[in-house]
Amino acid sequence: MPQYKAPLNEVFFLLNDVFGLKSLQSLPSFSDLSADLVEQILIQAAKLCEETLAPLNASGDRIGCVRDAGGRVVAPPNFKAAYRAFAEGGWVGLPVPEEYGGQGLPYTLSMLIDEFASSANMALAMYPGLTQGALAALLRHGTQQQKLLYAPKLAQGRWTGTMNLTEPQCGTDLGLLTTKALPRADGSFSITGQKIFISAGEHDLTENIIHLVLARIEGAPAGVKGISLFIVPKILVNENGELGARNTVSCGAIEEKMGIHGNATCVMNYDGAQGFLLGEANRGLNAMFVMMNEARLGVAVQGLAQSEVAYQNAVSYAKDRLQGRALTGVKNPDKNADPIIVHPDVRRMLLEIKSFNEPARALAFSAAIDSDIVHHSSDPQARLAAEDRLGLLTPVMKGVFTDIGFENCVKAQQVYGGHGYVREWGMEQFVRDARIAMIYEGANGIQAIDLVGRKLPRENGRAVMAFFKDAGDILSLHANNALMNDYVLPVQESLDHLQKATVWLMNNAISNPDNAGAASYDYMHLFGRVALGVMWVKIAHAALVKKAQQTELTQVMDSKLLIGKFYMERMLPETAYRLIRISSGAVTMMSMPVEMF
Amino acid sequence: MPQYKAPLNEVFFLLNDVFGLKSLQSLPSFSDLSADLVEQILIQAAKLCEETLAPLNASGDRIGCVRDAGGRVVAPPNFKAAYRAFAEGGWVGLPVPEEYGGQGLPYTLSMLIDEFASSANMALAMYPGLTQGALAALLRHGTQQQKLLYAPKLAQGRWTGTMNLTEPQCGTDLGLLTTKALPRADGSFSITGQKIFISAGEHDLTENIIHLVLARIEGAPAGVKGISLFIVPKILVNENGELGARNTVSCGAIEEKMGIHGNATCVMNYDGAQGFLLGEANRGLNAMFVMMNEARLGVAVQGLAQSEVAYQNAVSYAKDRLQGRALTGVKNPDKNADPIIVHPDVRRMLLEIKSFNEPARALAFSAAIDSDIVHHSSDPQARLAAEDRLGLLTPVMKGVFTDIGFENCVKAQQVYGGHGYVREWGMEQFVRDARIAMIYEGANGIQAIDLVGRKLPRENGRAVMAFFKDAGDILSLHANNALMNDYVLPVQESLDHLQKATVWLMNNAISNPDNAGAASYDYMHLFGRVALGVMWVKIAHAALVKKAQQTELTQVMDSKLLIGKFYMERMLPETAYRLIRISSGAVTMMSMPVEMF
Repeated sequence: MPQYKAPLNEVFFLLNDVFGLKSLQSLPSFSDLSADLVEQILIQAAKLCEETLAPLNASGDRIGCVRDAGGRVVAPPNFKAAYRAFAEGGWVGLPVPEEYGGQGLPYTLSMLIDEFASSANMALAMYPGLTQGALAALLRHGTQQQKLLYAPKLAQGRWTGTMNLTEPQCGTDLGLLTTKALPRADGSFSITGQKIFISAGEHDLTENIIHLVLARIEGAPAGVKGISLFIVPKILVNENGELGARNTVSCGAIEEKMGIHGNATCVMNYDGAQGFLLGEANRGLNAMFVMMNEARLGVAVQGLAQSEVAYQNAVSYAKDRLQGRALTGVKNPDKNADPIIVHPDVRRMLLEIKSFNEPARALAFSAAIDSDIVHHSSDPQARLAAEDRLGLLTPVMKGVFTDIGFENCVKAQQVYGGHGYVREWGMEQFVRDARIAMIYEGANGIQAIDLVGRKLPRENGRAVMAFFKDAGDILSLHANNALMNDYVLPVQESLDHLQKATVWLMNNAISNPDNAGAASYDYMHLFGRVALGVMWVKIAHAALVKKAQQTELTQVMDSKLLIGKFYMERMLPETAYRLIRISSGAVTMMSMPVEMF
Repeated sequence: MPQYKAPLNEVFFLLNDVFGLKSLQSLPSFSDLSADLVEQILIQAAKLCEETLAPLNASGDRIGCVRDAGGRVVAPPNFKAAYRAFAEGGWVGLPVPEEYGGQGLPYTLSMLIDEFASSANMALAMYPGLTQGALAALLRHGTQQQKLLYAPKLAQGRWTGTMNLTEPQCGTDLGLLTTKALPRADGSFSITGQKIFISAGEHDLTENIIHLVLARIEGAPAGVKGISLFIVPKILVNENGELGARNTVSCGAIEEKMGIHGNATCVMNYDGAQGFLLGEANRGLNAMFVMMNEARLGVAVQGLAQSEVAYQNAVSYAKDRLQGRALTGVKNPDKNADPIIVHPDVRRMLLEIKSFNEPARALAFSAAIDSDIVHHSSDPQARLAAEDRLGLLTPVMKGVFTDIGFENCVKAQQVYGGHGYVREWGMEQFVRDARIAMIYEGANGIQAIDLVGRKLPRENGRAVMAFFKDAGDILSLHANNALMNDYVLPVQESLDHLQKATVWLMNNAISNPDNAGAASYDYMHLFGRVALGVMWVKIAHAALVKKAQQTELTQVMDSKLLIGKFYMERMLPETAYRLIRISSGAVTMMSMPVEMF
């Protein structure tokens, strides 16, 4: 069975050496955040994820969720107790303000813990993950009364949340949705329609579930401008907070799917269910986007999380499995074969994974700090800049982390040879679970078009220009440090590719929008490679500093410098190829007649 | 449920226009092969695969194989009847000489039909596929008596075959195998040991199973030079061909695995089972390699086959699914959304798949012709050249086709969005099934090292030099045809990258073998991209000729030219990136201390 250890040392290095705790302490809400407290929180979370969540991952996959004829859904054995431990630890509402039942701690911490939980048990971690998304929308758009009624129970994990967008005829294109909301005399609405692919739509982990549902108020305009967001509790909540009547919402079926079997993917039937408008009428997409942006970061972290746990197990197997001899001579003379980690191609696979995991965690960390700045900084300029960065990088992270996270699971599985294909070793589950992250919360092609079609042009490219400036500043900062040449020079070259690609888009996408669509996926990946490269520059510099300070860490820091160099030599040069693909434009693909495919 | 139509038109185009039937007719055994006969055979095979095999693919996956306490294994419902139809059609032994119960037809035809069968139902197609491998070894290394006793039943599909290499402690490194063979007084052997991951090791499709088993004769040298190959029938066969006593070989367990559930992956226990030496003692690996090379080509075709069927379904979904509007304006004004095939990024995914499938089929075709030349040509020079090509290209095809085949299934699944993740649509099964092809018959990393470490240096690089010459000749042939510039020039550039990479290996691998290991995977993929590019040159030229001859095919041929151009613009330029990776060498990856991974 696979093992998992939370990468605490990596996280502490990012926190203390790469970004510094001061990046959080400088925000008024967190000025008294101590290194000790942060360390304790992370150690406790790691322990829970390792000891309580991880052991249920394989059995959760094998047994899955079961729906009975009455529409009740039972989560896999022991999920309820594990979930309760997670909720009672205060982990669900970590970043929620204390007045709404949370801990008032930085989102950055919450995101780090999300990674641990997703590595340990992705299907189980989705229950609090979706709740966090629902909380974000509720706290941003809810009335004070709504917030007080729902948020504390959600933040304490006593209830969970869901998001209901998709319908059979309507996935990406939300303008097509037909779920109806009829006004009732008391100001609430009757919601009727069918939603599909609703993660955690029904389960037995908590006594109530708060569904956030997109629907169309009778008479609303067609398309996306006529969509509103509703709070639809599974069990209605009285004004005093007590549970009342069962609402007319039910789980009609659960999907049989490739993975994440521990989390029921539900068909939800709303049959005149009572719902409460959240935010403004006909502005539901805006409200939902708050939830979705948060959720997209969370999904990006799932990609990293699966890559991390798959990596850990592949390393362990590569050290244990004896097979063949090193090309340069016997390494293990006492045994009849060497461990396969002596083979260059096995190292290649492992380093391709690890050279992603480290900067991806750094990038997620940096995005989480930006999220904390957006919510807590008193400086409007800083908030705006952070919001720009977050807007720009969220689709990049969601698309790139989940694509590469999946590929990395496939690579880690490959290290096991035939053993990777059989269920017993657990590697194939990581592959199956990781696959969904490329699809949900907006398939990765949608992330790419969000990046190129919306995030880039916004405010005349303000966000991307700021990204170029920041990246350029970091490179300039280290330009005269010869020890940094191995990192600065390749990133400079790839940044140049990204800038060329951006100029190409500016010059070609307006005349023909298909050029934007045809370039979008490669542009997203080009952006991701560069953004990860910039993180490597930061990590490499922090490693050099640390090494000079604490010589007992020399080997650890040297290994970071090596992995970074591997990234520069083998992963980053992909940017030139992406630029060629982007510049090839849309003509060839759009010339194909539909019937000739 | 997914649909499948055998790509008959593609195959006829390859047969008639790209390679020409004369490439087979020029071999003495096939001089009277008529276009009509070939066409009829392929049409019949297509019909069987589409109508009988394909409908059982999803249910075979869902129900899988079941083993009872007595070790009997039952294949999924209706597999037996479908297998029998396949066997009775004469498809198993198509290329086997008539004196051994086959049809005496070209292997090329057999390989084309293998693709159809694997697309329709990979798990089911593995039963005859493994039989074909066993037949190859038997016909090459068996005594006349052995051939007459076993081959006709195998060729007629009345029995199936297996190959037994892997043991728990020994996968890639066959030198570690411990299964024992004790000589008996009658000249046969008692085989004792455990084999794992034995595909089709036990089932109820046929009355007998002929296991080919690697074992070590008592007193044989250690390592790979002490391994022999044995015929171990499940039920012993009397000299008159009748079935005798049950042999002491049994299925101890079947693996729960990621996919190919319709084919039992067995733990096989040999408990003093009677076995018969096949070929020379201690030369078992040589005999097994015959089987393995054939099997590797078969696995390459599985990669293509899954890519093809996944593509067909993704295209169909992309034409049907209405979601969003084209970036350049409404294409489907009568409906409230356009089919998603209008979106550039959906076309990108589809064309990435199709721009591989067409040249991959051509390359497989060309390898199959080489196999026919090796077995049937009367010209020793031609046989040698074909053997060189086949030796060189088999690991390339196995590694590249299965890697890209899997990636293509993932892309095709992505076209479906959330629907791709649920079992009902069948796309996730293609992904799970395709995954094994990257692992079995030598994991793809092993293919890469076989290519770089064995196939390249053999006879001072004779095979690779011949490849460069052949490729250069084709490019020269079309160098003055302006209509071919879009194909010839990019392939010339990428061929140059391959040549540079080859020179780099020559200069760096001898001084440090780790450089070969570190470069091998990228070299294999670089080679694959170039070989597929050369196939595109052939296809493009054939399309231009055809278009000039038959104007009613203009649109079909123009679409081929477009897809080829897409390959040149977007897929082939990867070669520059691969060259950079190769040239970066082994130093960085080998410097990482094991404990720092």
